[in-house]
Amino acid sequence: MSADEERRLARVALTWLAEPGTRVVYRLVERLGPVATLDLLLDGGSPDGWLHSTVAARLAGGDARAVAAEALERADRLGARLVTPDDEEWPAQVADLATLRLPDVTRRVDGETAPPLCFWVRGGWPLGEALDRSVAVVGARAATGYGQHVATELGYGLAERDWTVVSGGAFGIDAAAHRGALNAGGLTVAVLACGLDRPYPMGNAALFDRIADTGLLVSEWPPGAEPLRPRFLIRNRVIAAGTVGTVLVEASARSGATQTARRAVYTNRVAMVVPGPVTSAMSVGAHEFLRDNPKTRLVTGVAHVLEEVGRIGADLAPPARGPQRPADTLDDDARSLLEALPRRGARGVDALATRAGLDVRTAMRKLSLLEELSMVVRRDGGYALAAPVTPKRGSATVTAR
Amino acid sequence: MSADEERRLARVALTWLAEPGTRVVYRLVERLGPVATLDLLLDGGSPDGWLHSTVAARLAGGDARAVAAEALERADRLGARLVTPDDEEWPAQVADLATLRLPDVTRRVDGETAPPLCFWVRGGWPLGEALDRSVAVVGARAATGYGQHVATELGYGLAERDWTVVSGGAFGIDAAAHRGALNAGGLTVAVLACGLDRPYPMGNAALFDRIADTGLLVSEWPPGAEPLRPRFLIRNRVIAAGTVGTVLVEASARSGATQTARRAVYTNRVAMVVPGPVTSAMSVGAHEFLRDNPKTRLVTGVAHVLEEVGRIGADLAPPARGPQRPADTLDDDARSLLEALPRRGARGVDALATRAGLDVRTAMRKLSLLEELSMVVRRDGGYALAAPVTPKRGSATVTAR
Repeated sequence: MSADEERRLARVALTWLAEPGTRVVYRLVERLGPVATLDLLLDGGSPDGWLHSTVAARLAGGDARAVAAEALERADRLGARLVTPDDEEWPAQVADLATLRLPDVTRRVDGETAPPLCFWVRGGWPLGEALDRSVAVVGARAATGYGQHVATELGYGLAERDWTVVSGGAFGIDAAAHRGALNAGGLTVAVLACGLDRPYPMGNAALFDRIADTGLLVSEWPPGAEPLRPRFLIRNRVIAAGTVGTVLVEASARSGATQTARRAVYTNRVAMVVPGPVTSAMSVGAHEFLRDNPKTRLVTGVAHVLEEVGRIGADLAPPARGPQRPADTLDDDARSLLEALPRRGARGVDALATRAGLDVRTAMRKLSLLEELSMVVRRDGGYALAAPVTPKRGSATVTAR
Repeated sequence: MSADEERRLARVALTWLAEPGTRVVYRLVERLGPVATLDLLLDGGSPDGWLHSTVAARLAGGDARAVAAEALERADRLGARLVTPDDEEWPAQVADLATLRLPDVTRRVDGETAPPLCFWVRGGWPLGEALDRSVAVVGARAATGYGQHVATELGYGLAERDWTVVSGGAFGIDAAAHRGALNAGGLTVAVLACGLDRPYPMGNAALFDRIADTGLLVSEWPPGAEPLRPRFLIRNRVIAAGTVGTVLVEASARSGATQTARRAVYTNRVAMVVPGPVTSAMSVGAHEFLRDNPKTRLVTGVAHVLEEVGRIGADLAPPARGPQRPADTLDDDARSLLEALPRRGARGVDALATRAGLDVRTAMRKLSLLEELSMVVRRDGGYALAAPVTPKRGSATVTAR
């Protein structure tokens, strides 16, 4: 096992020993590196009583390195990959979580908001690039028709302007935001609180498939991990810190979605709230959030959101959606289609599907992805290679290296 | 004519010569008093070219003092009275308009926001007392069912807590707020932009009658004055400055109601806005106002409004709703009912109506007013005199003295 592989394995093992976000573990990793931190914890050397018992309890259930190795294999079979700070695609902005301190913390989980040690990712985009120009749209699961309409419009409008729409994959507002982005042919990222092999909720399975197809499914938890209640809260800090801003669409009083917006406020991201009828229970939390957080902006639509995030977006690098990088992550079907395209001129979808050995539905889906990656263009009723692009042969699928 | 009468007449004449709010006139009155100011203007001595032509144009249509005298007579017949800063019931807080300067003024009418020179008032309450603990609830005429529901609830809830509900008597939100207050048996004041003999809009005539019955109809314009378009804007400054705070319920983009809220902001009153669905055109102006005016508070119901105005209310004198003062302004019917009440014990409504020579409906209405004034109490299925009250004989009706 290479030193790199050992470090990756250690990060996975550490995330299994203690939940993501645990401050003391993050600080140890910062100081000692993941391998020495793992050794320390396995030797019973936790500097913290609580962590000591947590680790001991975990270890009673298995060997940390073996569990981690199995998780990596499982991810490989799943077509998912591990992303760590050593990888080029690591989203650097999540490091801001290191200084996040929520006020009035009463639950341990609200205090353990350290940056992630690693991500599991499914989908063709480099994670960091996908999150570079991203906005979170979150809200109530028991959303009203009004809220879902607004979230869909926001998802669509943001995606249309080349912003990645990030949410939690839940019913209601989250799903509506993802769907809006997908309908616009845009990029959407679902940050989950469980293993990528069992995206929760099951009722959104088809949606998760669509997201993985053109966007990303992301989680801090290894394959097999259950969507335990506190994990949603732990996950929320990633949605908040991974994006430029968070839009809260509907939230009942004391809703979990307001916790994401709260984490956005305290990591100095733009927190935005869509108001609603004061007669709607599903807007109570949204209005309270606006009243309680003076820096929060009231937004009524995509124009307002763009106004807010655009200000920050202007300071960012221009959307790094170049043709080279994504090619590294294309799957076999997409590459077959690229090879089936004529060097000059266009070819119809049916002909392309036949040449690539694919059914027409798959071919269309992949062509739409390639089109979004600016690798192909629609022309003369078919598709053609985009002018300056030389498809680059990368690894067929990106796995947990 | 007494000096006092001469001053009153001069104020009426000045309001006829130039629209209320005209700064140069207000400043002259402050310096020279109303009589000398009137003399100056009648002699063609306006210090301002624009005022000079305005006055000249007016004078072509009549004699200022004669017009004013006629207005006073007309008000007398109408059961309305003139209130000036010389009167005890003058609402002192409108003087804050002297320092109101709206930013980005392009129309003359937005710059002419000086305090009123006088008010015409119809109804039994002393104007100043009625406005002491008052909140304005204003909004769109083309209100939605949602907005009207919210405005009614606000009017009701504020009245129930002994706050006077002030609005402009218009269709939609204004009417809903007045009605809510009336339904709670509370005090409501309609500030009009025309003569009290022709309250506008006519469609609200029954509402205006109800308001005059237990609350107040107020205007800066003499009887006969038409509801000209700019007058609504001029009127709005009185709603804003006469109250502790203004709640904007629904407003389309560039609605007049937002102008009242704007005047509240710039006279350091509490400006409050009720949000609504972002999909509703009738909330666009409300949301824009919230976005553009950082000091404005989002409120979702009467509890939030009370929280805002209560803060100021706490600094005010306790609600001066004592039993003595209102008795001065009771009409004949109410006094007859008081006389019909037994010195000890209670008497039923029918018996009271018969003794007072009134029909039952009138008797009930007046008894409800007396009850609100703490002069009678409901007891044993009828009404009784409230314990410590000795009804005091004042002038039968309050007229333009």
